[in-house]
Amino acid sequence: MKFVVVTLFPDLIMSYCRTSIIGRGMESGKILVETCNPREFCTDKYRRVDDTPYGGGPGMVLKPEPMFAAVESIDKPEGSPVILMTPHGEPFKQAIAEELAHETHIVFICGHYEGFDERIRTLATREISLGDFVMTGGELAALTIIDAVGRLVPGVIGKPISLADESFVSGILEAPQYTKPAEFRGMIVPQVLRGGNHKEVALWRRREALRRTYLRRPDLLANIELNRDEQKFLNELKEYTAVDE
Amino acid sequence: MKFVVVTLFPDLIMSYCRTSIIGRGMESGKILVETCNPREFCTDKYRRVDDTPYGGGPGMVLKPEPMFAAVESIDKPEGSPVILMTPHGEPFKQAIAEELAHETHIVFICGHYEGFDERIRTLATREISLGDFVMTGGELAALTIIDAVGRLVPGVIGKPISLADESFVSGILEAPQYTKPAEFRGMIVPQVLRGGNHKEVALWRRREALRRTYLRRPDLLANIELNRDEQKFLNELKEYTAVDE
Repeated sequence: MKFVVVTLFPDLIMSYCRTSIIGRGMESGKILVETCNPREFCTDKYRRVDDTPYGGGPGMVLKPEPMFAAVESIDKPEGSPVILMTPHGEPFKQAIAEELAHETHIVFICGHYEGFDERIRTLATREISLGDFVMTGGELAALTIIDAVGRLVPGVIGKPISLADESFVSGILEAPQYTKPAEFRGMIVPQVLRGGNHKEVALWRRREALRRTYLRRPDLLANIELNRDEQKFLNELKEYTAVDE
Repeated sequence: MKFVVVTLFPDLIMSYCRTSIIGRGMESGKILVETCNPREFCTDKYRRVDDTPYGGGPGMVLKPEPMFAAVESIDKPEGSPVILMTPHGEPFKQAIAEELAHETHIVFICGHYEGFDERIRTLATREISLGDFVMTGGELAALTIIDAVGRLVPGVIGKPISLADESFVSGILEAPQYTKPAEFRGMIVPQVLRGGNHKEVALWRRREALRRTYLRRPDLLANIELNRDEQKFLNELKEYTAVDE
């Protein structure tokens, strides 16, 4: 799996990758992260990557020429995704991470908070947003996607943990987790988890996952199918619980 | 503005901060970023920060004691927010960034993809999620919030640009931007932007912002009030445009 990040700030990308779990994936050869800096593709002697906006206004706008030259310099298989990080894109979700994990080569184009020339959009096959907020650039958004996709690459995270139990992978939030000590500052681990009855533990976890999702993110419940017992449990929750955890 | 990140991976936080615009804010003294590592608060000789989950299952769970000791060691004004980064929290939005920009001291607790002891939640005054996806830890989420909040601190980003024109700050997506050249690979900058009539430019930008928001994020239109002309423009859009940009 190869990620290439087109960015004016390659150090931001590489310094993070080297010190993170992604770095472990790079060391073991499962993941390759590279950067491509549009500034190196400027043809004027001042190496200008931005200029003033047409129509006036504050801030500088990234110019199209260096960005086109940078993206076109990247050697990649036909049909590889080229993702523009912008708040105007589709919101990033676990389903997109899973979809991207099937690719072998992903290019990210990092925007810049002051804006980029509209024509740069035509370089992208897809536009993704990290959420409804403004950042200084697209680098953290690209790193977030590299992290979320990279960890799905077999062998990158240490142990083969059960991804299916995680939040969003199962479609809903996951149940509370506890480790030792059994009592800490008066807060006690639920008896059922300490009992060792696997069937009861599984039932408790499923119900607590449903309860937490109902209380915090009821919108996610539309994602899953419930058996009759689970539907009954949820109906009782709705009847007896105010949504104000 | 002081940010303290409680994390097992302090290098991830500091290496990013030093090389980003946040680093410029740190150099000029507008922003201070520190880390606090729970591993330094372990009292056993192996410095264990995690342990196996009660009830069984894969993965390791962060223990409560080192996390409590770490967070309680941080000297902070009464009432400062302590934010737990978790996919179970409220989704991060620009309005939260603006709210947090009024604080002087913010603590972040970074979770870990394999999970943390439920009792750690009681340390937090607030839980925030970056989105419906799973990452290897909370560090990128904390950095994202530091970036989005830090850039609102006066003097951190270079020029005093007009924040009000940005996406989400105005409540909707912003209009396309263009810079030189006027023509690039057959793609031409709209005439109105090159004309220099400020009133026409302002009208074009408002309408293009409305159009883009209607096409890409119609949910955001509920956030804003429209004057009669804008409402008419939007009604025409709805009548004549299929939502498939």
